[in-house]
Amino acid sequence: MTSYYHHPEPFVLESGAALDGFTIAYHTFGELNADRSNVVWVCHALTANSDVKDWWPGTVEPDGFLNPGEYFIVCANIIGSNYGTTGPLSTDPATGEPYYGTFPAVTMRDIARAHSVLATALGIDSIYALIGSSVGGFQALEWAAQEPSRFGRIVLIATDAKASPWNIAVNETQRMAIRSDSTFGKPSPDAGRDGLAAARAIGLLTYRGPEGYNATQHELDGGHPEPGNHRACTYQRYQGEKLCRRFNAYSYMSILNSFDTHDIGRNRGGLAAALATLTAPALVVGISTDIIFTPAEMRALAQALPQGRYAEIQSAFGHDGFLVEHRCLNSLLIPFMHQ
Amino acid sequence: MTSYYHHPEPFVLESGAALDGFTIAYHTFGELNADRSNVVWVCHALTANSDVKDWWPGTVEPDGFLNPGEYFIVCANIIGSNYGTTGPLSTDPATGEPYYGTFPAVTMRDIARAHSVLATALGIDSIYALIGSSVGGFQALEWAAQEPSRFGRIVLIATDAKASPWNIAVNETQRMAIRSDSTFGKPSPDAGRDGLAAARAIGLLTYRGPEGYNATQHELDGGHPEPGNHRACTYQRYQGEKLCRRFNAYSYMSILNSFDTHDIGRNRGGLAAALATLTAPALVVGISTDIIFTPAEMRALAQALPQGRYAEIQSAFGHDGFLVEHRCLNSLLIPFMHQ
Repeated sequence: MTSYYHHPEPFVLESGAALDGFTIAYHTFGELNADRSNVVWVCHALTANSDVKDWWPGTVEPDGFLNPGEYFIVCANIIGSNYGTTGPLSTDPATGEPYYGTFPAVTMRDIARAHSVLATALGIDSIYALIGSSVGGFQALEWAAQEPSRFGRIVLIATDAKASPWNIAVNETQRMAIRSDSTFGKPSPDAGRDGLAAARAIGLLTYRGPEGYNATQHELDGGHPEPGNHRACTYQRYQGEKLCRRFNAYSYMSILNSFDTHDIGRNRGGLAAALATLTAPALVVGISTDIIFTPAEMRALAQALPQGRYAEIQSAFGHDGFLVEHRCLNSLLIPFMHQ
Repeated sequence: MTSYYHHPEPFVLESGAALDGFTIAYHTFGELNADRSNVVWVCHALTANSDVKDWWPGTVEPDGFLNPGEYFIVCANIIGSNYGTTGPLSTDPATGEPYYGTFPAVTMRDIARAHSVLATALGIDSIYALIGSSVGGFQALEWAAQEPSRFGRIVLIATDAKASPWNIAVNETQRMAIRSDSTFGKPSPDAGRDGLAAARAIGLLTYRGPEGYNATQHELDGGHPEPGNHRACTYQRYQGEKLCRRFNAYSYMSILNSFDTHDIGRNRGGLAAALATLTAPALVVGISTDIIFTPAEMRALAQALPQGRYAEIQSAFGHDGFLVEHRCLNSLLIPFMHQ
């Protein structure tokens, strides 16, 4: 069940603009123990929501690394999204209308500070483990850089401390697709729908990569369909359409923009200096076929963390392996969570 | 200088539709020798033209594998393109107006047969070497499957004998971007321009890959630009815009469609049987960071060819390495051309 926390005070963003308060949607699983020492905070990826049990199968289970019998698990929807937390579809108090394209620019720093506000409001001081995959890992790294002593351990899966030129190029290409849909900009939740579908399809290419598609999207009957009717084509269109039914182009743009500016070294003396302050034990997990955050990049991240350790999942599913390979994650993360 | 050959007879396409004749634009370099034994035929990639000396730097040179002092080099623009060969912007004789979206579907088989028609018209029987990279390799493989005894040797660079599910997914995503531009479909060469720019940016992601972008698109001053102003962003937009100035969305769609259906095994007893008929010595060149045609796929192609040999170029430029790494290509291809 989704819970909501309303922060009643102005929230000044990194840009200098301010939200006149904000709402944050979150889920919890399990029970907070007496000394409040069993909190596990999960940060979600791009278009996910706070229901981690739903989007991360096999993890919020008695035999998963998010065992609700052992931990009090919290996951909060990020600012800019559209799953209950303040974002572009929320009402702008200044106009009484939804923000749409006028929603102020947010950064990973703003998103991480919102997590911190919620944690404090929930009476949580110390967090036993902070876990993030993909853009969730951006938040985890950023939050840990803001409050390094708050976390007992950190798990970083298929992510990085700074958006790479490649990441940014992929994001810009998605923005180009959204902007090429002339309905984007109109004051409607459906604005830019076809462009959003194309953007999602672009994202998906990078989530799955060559190995992912070639392992799963062969023609089943060995046939020779007309152009546009190949299985890989209907898959791309279906996935684009599926996102449009649950998300909107304005939120998507907002989160892509916060992705681009992710850099925990900004105004902290650079990346190496910022990473050196993250002294909690950290498990960094790469995926062998991930083309968004490559194994080489993940290994370098682990090496730059004072107590970083690198582990790799062998998977044909590319970046999406973090959602699929929960058995591997459980076997890697459960010992780390207990050490 | 571009030359043109007009084929005056109806040209029945694989689909059963017919073109009422066609024009093919081509370039030649060097001189045909007395016994017509020095022909090297180059097939071009997606949006290139017949001027191979222009788009493949460092190759049509006295010290290049396309030495015009030694060979008579021919390169022809493909059907569906817009560099002089019949395509969607050509006049439909039935209406007196450009075809645009009504241009009939063409396949790699049609494109290869057009090359064959031109070769015969030029008085060329036997071809000393047939060379194709990327979609040019599709044509080379297809043409060799149609007329295996015509070629003395074949060079296949960063290509494959069949479009993979991954290739098709990338193409469909580009089509989604073009279709999300509501101007696509209008009777104008500029129709779908913004969508075409986004499609090109998608293609570019796969041409360069993570290594390519991360090697070349870092912020030069170590700054922290606003979203959309990163170097990787302006690069994507610039490249999209650049293609729009020289190409059109209808031709792009036509060639993407012929890409999707590329399969030299179709109606030839399957891929392995078709490849087994290609008995000429074949050099297959993969690029270490190519994510369109991966080194593993290229190695498998070489193994499936009766006289196939595999060589790999180490490059940070991904698929685009075939355009960039001409020194490596010269050192690999010149000995193969002489053996």
